[in-house]
Amino acid sequence: MNITVGQIAALVGGKVEGGPESAIITGVASIADANVGNITFFGNARYLGALKDTKATAALVPVDFSEEIPAIKIKVANPSLAFSQLVEKTAPKPVVFHPGIHRTAVIGEDVSLGKDVSIQPYAIIESGTEIGDRTVVGAHVYIGRETTIGNDCLIYPNVTIRERSLLGNRIIIQSGAVIGGDGFGYEFENGRYVKIPQVGIVQIDDDVEIGSNSTIDRARFGRTWIQEGTKIDNLVQIAHNVTVGKHCVLVSQSGVSGSTKLGNYVTLAGQAGLVGHIELGDQVIVGAKSGVSKSIPAREFVFGIPAVPDKEFKIRAARVNRLGKLIERVKKLEQLLDSNEKSLPPEI
Amino acid sequence: MNITVGQIAALVGGKVEGGPESAIITGVASIADANVGNITFFGNARYLGALKDTKATAALVPVDFSEEIPAIKIKVANPSLAFSQLVEKTAPKPVVFHPGIHRTAVIGEDVSLGKDVSIQPYAIIESGTEIGDRTVVGAHVYIGRETTIGNDCLIYPNVTIRERSLLGNRIIIQSGAVIGGDGFGYEFENGRYVKIPQVGIVQIDDDVEIGSNSTIDRARFGRTWIQEGTKIDNLVQIAHNVTVGKHCVLVSQSGVSGSTKLGNYVTLAGQAGLVGHIELGDQVIVGAKSGVSKSIPAREFVFGIPAVPDKEFKIRAARVNRLGKLIERVKKLEQLLDSNEKSLPPEI
Amino acid sequence: MNITVGQIAALVGGKVEGGPESAIITGVASIADANVGNITFFGNARYLGALKDTKATAALVPVDFSEEIPAIKIKVANPSLAFSQLVEKTAPKPVVFHPGIHRTAVIGEDVSLGKDVSIQPYAIIESGTEIGDRTVVGAHVYIGRETTIGNDCLIYPNVTIRERSLLGNRIIIQSGAVIGGDGFGYEFENGRYVKIPQVGIVQIDDDVEIGSNSTIDRARFGRTWIQEGTKIDNLVQIAHNVTVGKHCVLVSQSGVSGSTKLGNYVTLAGQAGLVGHIELGDQVIVGAKSGVSKSIPAREFVFGIPAVPDKEFKIRAARVNRLGKLIERVKKLEQLLDSNEKSLPPEI
Repeated sequence: MNITVGQIAALVGGKVEGGPESAIITGVASIADANVGNITFFGNARYLGALKDTKATAALVPVDFSEEIPAIKIKVANPSLAFSQLVEKTAPKPVVFHPGIHRTAVIGEDVSLGKDVSIQPYAIIESGTEIGDRTVVGAHVYIGRETTIGNDCLIYPNVTIRERSLLGNRIIIQSGAVIGGDGFGYEFENGRYVKIPQVGIVQIDDDVEIGSNSTIDRARFGRTWIQEGTKIDNLVQIAHNVTVGKHCVLVSQSGVSGSTKLGNYVTLAGQAGLVGHIELGDQVIVGAKSGVSKSIPAREFVFGIPAVPDKEFKIRAARVNRLGKLIERVKKLEQLLDSNEKSLPPEI
Repeated sequence: MNITVGQIAALVGGKVEGGPESAIITGVASIADANVGNITFFGNARYLGALKDTKATAALVPVDFSEEIPAIKIKVANPSLAFSQLVEKTAPKPVVFHPGIHRTAVIGEDVSLGKDVSIQPYAIIESGTEIGDRTVVGAHVYIGRETTIGNDCLIYPNVTIRERSLLGNRIIIQSGAVIGGDGFGYEFENGRYVKIPQVGIVQIDDDVEIGSNSTIDRARFGRTWIQEGTKIDNLVQIAHNVTVGKHCVLVSQSGVSGSTKLGNYVTLAGQAGLVGHIELGDQVIVGAKSGVSKSIPAREFVFGIPAVPDKEFKIRAARVNRLGKLIERVKKLEQLLDSNEKSLPPEI
Repeated sequence: MNITVGQIAALVGGKVEGGPESAIITGVASIADANVGNITFFGNARYLGALKDTKATAALVPVDFSEEIPAIKIKVANPSLAFSQLVEKTAPKPVVFHPGIHRTAVIGEDVSLGKDVSIQPYAIIESGTEIGDRTVVGAHVYIGRETTIGNDCLIYPNVTIRERSLLGNRIIIQSGAVIGGDGFGYEFENGRYVKIPQVGIVQIDDDVEIGSNSTIDRARFGRTWIQEGTKIDNLVQIAHNVTVGKHCVLVSQSGVSGSTKLGNYVTLAGQAGLVGHIELGDQVIVGAKSGVSKSIPAREFVFGIPAVPDKEFKIRAARVNRLGKLIERVKKLEQLLDSNEKSLPPEI
């Protein structure tokens, strides 16, 4: 990478301030890591202090940014997005999996493969499965019987997709994820847990992404359903018969118990957990590490274990934090009352 | 599926009420998802409201069920179990792995394979391993040296079982699980962590099931031991030298630290965690997201971080929730005392 | 194993007390599991009671140990370490992967393999990758393009290492771990999440160990960086652009959100979680299940959700536990004041 500040500004549609357009940029970096010759970006207010000390030669900043900083400013509408564009343009070329079927792939009977699919080494596609155009099936991926996968999907190495799963288009599944493992269901009989067959499926709609080593169990019957546009991070658990609505975000290590339903645009922060058989309305936000034990109406932000509205959580926490003072006040009252008693005329 | 209500009743040993035995059922569904032509079941009291609004044509209900519902009732002893039987009978045929050894399987020296085993594509079985009758070793499964696996086990694709593991009969291991990875043990010497060799094994007894992407570490010495009938959900961590007793249930994302012992019939709810070197008595229940820091006697139900008896947790939580009122009461006392002081004769 | 107490003492440099050097030892065991003929060790004060009841024939104890126990004592400087040495000497031989490239391995173009590497069955090494001397690439391991791996690394079966990762020497990666999966980054535009390309890498320095099924995401740009000597347990999540310093310990099921920086010698206990964009100073300890929401100065021990200094957490918890008594005291004051009021002369 060897490009001028002016050329970058032209690339991202920005305006240069506070330095020469001819300055040379040799790399991209975060504010803290940046050195002379790097360009960085200001996308999070908490980094303002660091930006004022940055060694970066240039920085992408918002249009209304008015602070003094040591770097040349390039003002753009969305610095984070502009930086991404820049990173993409200057990054090493992404790895591309060329169309074709590797000689080691094991492909069952009655498998239908779309145009320009890429089937990587040691991929296994069981009988009766359909795979759409331009989809990449990574190395060591296992796809069970009678599964349907749409167009332009990207299945990374070592993913397992069990039988009869139904996947839409443009889905990305990161390595190690398991789609369609058995749901966790047992009847307790005569002192033993007896397995309840899990004969349903997993359905994943268009534009969903699923993170590394996440697990999405097949339904007991019917389907476990991840709807359009939802993004699931690493090590997330989705139990049987769960429905996750459209455009939700499930951050790493969160978990959803059986038969629970999430509306659209729901956010589960990291390590959040939901009990089974409840419903979360549209745009609900569950705070990090919170445990949701009952249904939550739309647009609520909840926090805590068990989770309550965030405002309520903060009020309770503040009261607990001031408990020391309350104890002092009670002690003072006791002393006062004690001395008052002594100064009172004796009861007759 | 195309079957009458009367035929279903005969199938599950139930009694029809509130509608004709001749009504046609075309599919199974949960109460909320059910449409005309579906049969559903009532297995959880919290769905009574939904059942009263269900579009299902028929519903499996308990014998003593007396509510008015729009669906035809089929009364049975255990509606959930009856529904499972029905689902199983009407479901697409389960995928069966036929006996035989796939040409791509890599099998070491001195491997003993039982009758009718099924070794799927790209399975690797290292030297000195024994596998019992009718056991299925899924695609891409790795089984390390000198491992013993009993009869009728089902090892799903992409499972790793490290050397010298000891598995009983009828064990099910879901995809991505890792059995016998090194325990997490180090000595701190001269500012560095030095690995302690983990030379023990993992022993898993009959009828255990282990969920997708769960991890069960081998012992430092001796064994990590999962006893008969225990069911472990997805993404669960079992550290080295742990003993899990018989017929326990470990729900998703729970974790047990090194050398801890669980009795029989212990339940760990989702995302619960246990420190190392403690014991949980028989039938202990650890609530969701709880953190257990010390041993728990039998039959206790604990909750919270650190976990305390559930009753105690509830009392404390209730007191915290009423803190606002307590603060008000103290303020009132202060005001009262303040005005009393003023009305008192001056001290001489 | 068949060795005398005296021979063991010579082996570990210990001194025998309380029994004959000629006693025969036939196996190693923990204090609780030990039987006649076993040797055990005393490494954790909480097992003193159990040690006094042990059936073990001998026990490794610290030099200053003065309790009466039924077993013959062998006094050593570090009983835990001595026990490890003994276990190692008497354990079944560790499984060794011999140098060589299995016929089924798929190796791309321009791959450089060091001396005496061991490439196990079905390993895949993509083009442009370099692997150092004596490194073992386990069965079914996938190594993406242009990756660099140093000398003496041990990559267990079913690990995924994505393109351009940079690994040092003597690194151990347990089965199922995913290194270099895409970071979880999206821009929200017109009601949809749009993927931000994750074009950075993962860098892992010398002597790091990574547990089973843990996930370490590649950077959005630049690198996600695990520094020298750090040990990561199973099912741990490291998000994009995180830096973990030298000689840290991250216990199972803990998680670190994007761009957060850990200093050296940091400990995250089990199931701890950190938000993104914060810094933890050297030697910070985060207690089990704690949720860290802001930066923590060096040498602090924090606990709770949100995490506060451990002392503060304990004080608050103690106050909450005594709330019942405080409520009683307030009630008493109210009663007193009520009766005082009645005994006061009426206000005029």
